[in-house]
Amino acid sequence: VLSSLAPAALLAAGVALGVARAAAAPDEGMWLFNKPPAKELKDRYGFEASPEWMEHLQRSCVRFPGGSGSFVSPSGLVMTNHHVGAEWLHKLSEGERNIIRDGFLAKSPDEELRCPDLDLRVLWKIEDVTQAIEAATAGLATAQAGAARRKAMTQIESDGKQKTGLECEVVTLYQGGRYHLYSYKRFDDVRLVMAPEMSVAFFGGDADNFEFPRANLDATFFRVWENGAPLASEHYLTWNQEGTKEGDLVFVAGHPGSTQRLNTMAHLKYLRDVQLPARLASLWRREVQLAAFSRRSAKHAENAKDDLFGVQNSRKAMTGQLAGLLDPAIWNKKAQAEESLRKAVEANPEWKAKWGDAWDQVAAAQVTAKELLPRLSGLGGGTLRTGSDLAGIAVHLVRMAEELPKANTERLREYSDAGRDSLLQGLYSPAPIHPELEIERLESYLTRMAEFLGADDPVYQAALAGMSPRARAEQLVKNSKLADVSVRKAMVEGGSAALQAGNEPLLDFVRALDKPSREIRKRAEDEVQSVERAAYAKIAAAKFAVEGDSVYPDATFTLRLSYGTVKGYEEFGKLVRPYTDFDYLYARATEREGEDGFELPEQWLAKRGQLKGSTPFNFVNTCDIIGGNSGSPTVDREGRVVGLIFDGNIQSLIAGVTYTEAQARAVSVDSRGILEALRGIYDAKGLVQELTSPPPSEPRSRGN
Amino acid sequence: VLSSLAPAALLAAGVALGVARAAAAPDEGMWLFNKPPAKELKDRYGFEASPEWMEHLQRSCVRFPGGSGSFVSPSGLVMTNHHVGAEWLHKLSEGERNIIRDGFLAKSPDEELRCPDLDLRVLWKIEDVTQAIEAATAGLATAQAGAARRKAMTQIESDGKQKTGLECEVVTLYQGGRYHLYSYKRFDDVRLVMAPEMSVAFFGGDADNFEFPRANLDATFFRVWENGAPLASEHYLTWNQEGTKEGDLVFVAGHPGSTQRLNTMAHLKYLRDVQLPARLASLWRREVQLAAFSRRSAKHAENAKDDLFGVQNSRKAMTGQLAGLLDPAIWNKKAQAEESLRKAVEANPEWKAKWGDAWDQVAAAQVTAKELLPRLSGLGGGTLRTGSDLAGIAVHLVRMAEELPKANTERLREYSDAGRDSLLQGLYSPAPIHPELEIERLESYLTRMAEFLGADDPVYQAALAGMSPRARAEQLVKNSKLADVSVRKAMVEGGSAALQAGNEPLLDFVRALDKPSREIRKRAEDEVQSVERAAYAKIAAAKFAVEGDSVYPDATFTLRLSYGTVKGYEEFGKLVRPYTDFDYLYARATEREGEDGFELPEQWLAKRGQLKGSTPFNFVNTCDIIGGNSGSPTVDREGRVVGLIFDGNIQSLIAGVTYTEAQARAVSVDSRGILEALRGIYDAKGLVQELTSPPPSEPRSRGN
Repeated sequence: VLSSLAPAALLAAGVALGVARAAAAPDEGMWLFNKPPAKELKDRYGFEASPEWMEHLQRSCVRFPGGSGSFVSPSGLVMTNHHVGAEWLHKLSEGERNIIRDGFLAKSPDEELRCPDLDLRVLWKIEDVTQAIEAATAGLATAQAGAARRKAMTQIESDGKQKTGLECEVVTLYQGGRYHLYSYKRFDDVRLVMAPEMSVAFFGGDADNFEFPRANLDATFFRVWENGAPLASEHYLTWNQEGTKEGDLVFVAGHPGSTQRLNTMAHLKYLRDVQLPARLASLWRREVQLAAFSRRSAKHAENAKDDLFGVQNSRKAMTGQLAGLLDPAIWNKKAQAEESLRKAVEANPEWKAKWGDAWDQVAAAQVTAKELLPRLSGLGGGTLRTGSDLAGIAVHLVRMAEELPKANTERLREYSDAGRDSLLQGLYSPAPIHPELEIERLESYLTRMAEFLGADDPVYQAALAGMSPRARAEQLVKNSKLADVSVRKAMVEGGSAALQAGNEPLLDFVRALDKPSREIRKRAEDEVQSVERAAYAKIAAAKFAVEGDSVYPDATFTLRLSYGTVKGYEEFGKLVRPYTDFDYLYARATEREGEDGFELPEQWLAKRGQLKGSTPFNFVNTCDIIGGNSGSPTVDREGRVVGLIFDGNIQSLIAGVTYTEAQARAVSVDSRGILEALRGIYDAKGLVQELTSPPPSEPRSRGN
Repeated sequence: VLSSLAPAALLAAGVALGVARAAAAPDEGMWLFNKPPAKELKDRYGFEASPEWMEHLQRSCVRFPGGSGSFVSPSGLVMTNHHVGAEWLHKLSEGERNIIRDGFLAKSPDEELRCPDLDLRVLWKIEDVTQAIEAATAGLATAQAGAARRKAMTQIESDGKQKTGLECEVVTLYQGGRYHLYSYKRFDDVRLVMAPEMSVAFFGGDADNFEFPRANLDATFFRVWENGAPLASEHYLTWNQEGTKEGDLVFVAGHPGSTQRLNTMAHLKYLRDVQLPARLASLWRREVQLAAFSRRSAKHAENAKDDLFGVQNSRKAMTGQLAGLLDPAIWNKKAQAEESLRKAVEANPEWKAKWGDAWDQVAAAQVTAKELLPRLSGLGGGTLRTGSDLAGIAVHLVRMAEELPKANTERLREYSDAGRDSLLQGLYSPAPIHPELEIERLESYLTRMAEFLGADDPVYQAALAGMSPRARAEQLVKNSKLADVSVRKAMVEGGSAALQAGNEPLLDFVRALDKPSREIRKRAEDEVQSVERAAYAKIAAAKFAVEGDSVYPDATFTLRLSYGTVKGYEEFGKLVRPYTDFDYLYARATEREGEDGFELPEQWLAKRGQLKGSTPFNFVNTCDIIGGNSGSPTVDREGRVVGLIFDGNIQSLIAGVTYTEAQARAVSVDSRGILEALRGIYDAKGLVQELTSPPPSEPRSRGN
């Protein structure tokens, strides 16, 4: 499924420049909303993407943490995937209420459940700030330019927020070729309306994940509230109850997380030989450890379910990506493309002088990146990520006390004023903390830290404080008071003095790592990221000069538009048809009866007769998507919902590096299947009515 | 469970010298049969280990591939663990017969099933050949001495076999301090007599593995045949039907695989920071990949079950070992012991001159080992292990054609005459080959090879032959004819010419890797192993001089004797009693009902009334054991079977580095529980009678 990598993983990954070939392949591209593929749509599909059409779609879309969503009613109803919302379904489960297992349906607004620490964002406007950024860095040496650039970004975000009240984020596009200011409406009162049982949402489990045919109801509905009432959403998508047919043009609007399509070959080599293997090693480790933890009891399994799902999902995605990079056919094609671009630059003396050294600069940065990787990973990627919720809270407490007294632009970027509301919402989340899982996570972190730093490293020894990893993890978790939200609040409000007085072992633990973490982060920023930014800016300029400027940047977990057609494909010599239906779901459940991941909820078995078996349930199209697109609406020419993206097939997993149309497909739940299930299984009359009511003639006055 | 690492893993691990402290901790030690702990047994337990007692026990023991066993009747009946025999239970399963799931019982000898490629060894005699080895290497430089030593070992083995007809193996003890010639009777007609269902043999699955309390019937019976009839075994263990009680002295005789107890600190640091992390990374990878493969269908799961079990078992063992090494208390204690030994050497000018440089030499070898590790791993550890059965066959075919024409002592050690029978038995095994699993294994190998060599390495590119790892794996497996035993035979008998004519893609594949594999292996032998041998010989001499010579060498997967008492322990502040019974089994099954690994076979549920619930089922003692001891008999003062070792508890997993008596325990199936299950559940009257008949008054004339 298409969750995004955590942003921190992107940071650790180093960021890639991506500019597309001038002649994009059929249906290729994750396009900017302020630079849509107007010509391509016109030429290929006779479709006119008007500014109004674009703006309406843009403002109907929602960014979830790690995924996508959309407004689908005038009353703030938001649709996304079950797996995008699962974190909060877990957090809302307590005592007898097990939403993951049993699903949930609010019969009326007052039954809706408020999600702790969930905030959603709607992209309101985009502004090009490239000139301001470039002015701030003009004439500076590489590392200094990097620091100046980060400061300028913070300043622009802060100014933007002050001016508009919107949450602002400067997005680096073309890895330094362009900088855009994205301003978001942020909503922090989000309530659960409806979730199906996980067993039907994730039917087929890890076995069928990233496969097709599929039959999953990977859908969940939330509602945005504002000032104690459902939001009156100005922009929302209406529902196409007739759905699509094969050959139809469709669009996907969502937040693809990260691609590296036009990395230099040296950078791709780093990805292939160093970074992906390291990331996979870390995923294998966690998958095994979490599976072993889950075997201890049903309760352990329940608590670790989210972590395990995320790890398995990423593992499958990364495996596909690595397999693509190890395919000589794909590799050689990319090598040839780079060679011809470099030849064109070499052949023009002016270009050669301006841009000719950029590829070697990127290559040099990869050598440094490889050198820094173990220590950077061992110290949590510069943000001290350990996987533990409690330790994460401690990191924020320690670093906020250090950072907030500084001037806004002097801080670590994640503590700038622009992100404060979101940071505090996370920090004060009342979501439950599971001590045994916390111990497991910290023990795992402390063990892999030894591997990355070497167990004799003084920083590692300080982290252990004379104990074994297991004993230290137990000591930290069992003696921590940070599970109590009021303790966190008192520490934030009391600043350094309150921290010192807190007698909190996790704060000592974080303090021991804080300085070395900052040091290695600074080296990564100065010696890798800043070098890449400067070099990729040149490469982008060269590409624009040689190949023209109708190109899309690599994905950055910001809103993009993809387009394509509903279309099957050939696999192992057989045609895979583009649609599945409910009959397929039940046939598959019978075929794999008794196996993990294939058990249907009881009511799905009992109420089968209430479903029309031939109703389209899942379908594929050629849209260009990747992790982060989970929960994206699939819409038709009129911008109406025809589906809900939840996956790509196994052939699409190379999308981080290249788009291929022959077999790669995006997988949606069909709008007809969602309605049929809501009616036939869940008896969710109110929700069906809300989704299918015709829009009012006049837009409302306020809202998103 | 206590299977041994594959011998190849030991090779890749580098071998450790181990000599025990002069004052062994209570019940510590894996003792040589030609140097038993006579004084300790006399002093602590008033027990006299007579030469006759020792010889009878020695010749009643059996070495399985990766594990241990013993003769338990005068008619060649052999007892081991279910998990030691599982590989052959799989190989004997075909069509409707699923022995792993359903178990097996031969009602008469003619129903016994002959195991393909299973051979057993009985240690017949031990001879010290240290002087001959030392004479062969005297005056030579390190790398040359290493080569000369390997030649001398091959020559001694070959001479021994010629003289006695026994299978001979020179065993390196104290990592070069001593060399002993072990001569084995080898039996290659081994038939399955009885196996329980895997669900009760491995009750609790990965969750309870290496835990206690336990309730597992991890027992399987084979029979050795010779010349078409059951072997008349001269030496075998009789059955103690009364079992043990808490506090009883017991012995374990078996084949502990590998320990590193007295590695130098530099060598332990390599183990802790490099080798164990690398080994764990490889296990995590395979566990995840095999689990994913298993999710494809029930058939996939069935075929991958053995691989998966082995990987999970090793993963849990290695995890425990690493955790121990990361415990500062254990680490510092070992560091202090080394420091005091080195001080004693430094203080004596003669010792200092002879041995003082040894520790630095070991340290230098670790630096080289770390440098060589990626390439050595990528090329299958010098023996081109890929995990694929077919590729393994191809390796033997290619290398036999190269090696056999050479003089015996000039060959790679594994192709010397001494091991020929066993090699051919494996090569001609009719055991089924599963193409999909073979493809999975090769794809996995080709993917991790990229990680170890770098995908641009010419050797890697040659291995891929222009295809992706998946495509190459499919091409190799689908076009191979090596699943056919007659094809293999023709190629062995036809030599190089037959190989050339075979048009077999796997042979080309192996040829591309053969030379680079030999090169890296030679470097590992010359620059690491030979250096370690020479240096550890000095350290052993120093230890003998300083601490006296009543010491046991580190484990080498050869027969050892351990002793200890039946004894519970404290855990989390509670007493863990030393025995479980059948009531515990059923209570545990109820407690974890519906969870993977906790489902009892139907007949165990149906026939519960036929079992006496209070019969002791599993028990623990303080004997010093490790992986490879699986299947070892636990015997009493009279040498009678009181139990069957199948596991150690989680606290024992640090045994590779140190013995601890406080909590570490060996876990056995109780002799009473085995009989009760054979009677009550399996109605195995003949087997029970065979086990419990009083021994004849006269020993038979022939046999083991």
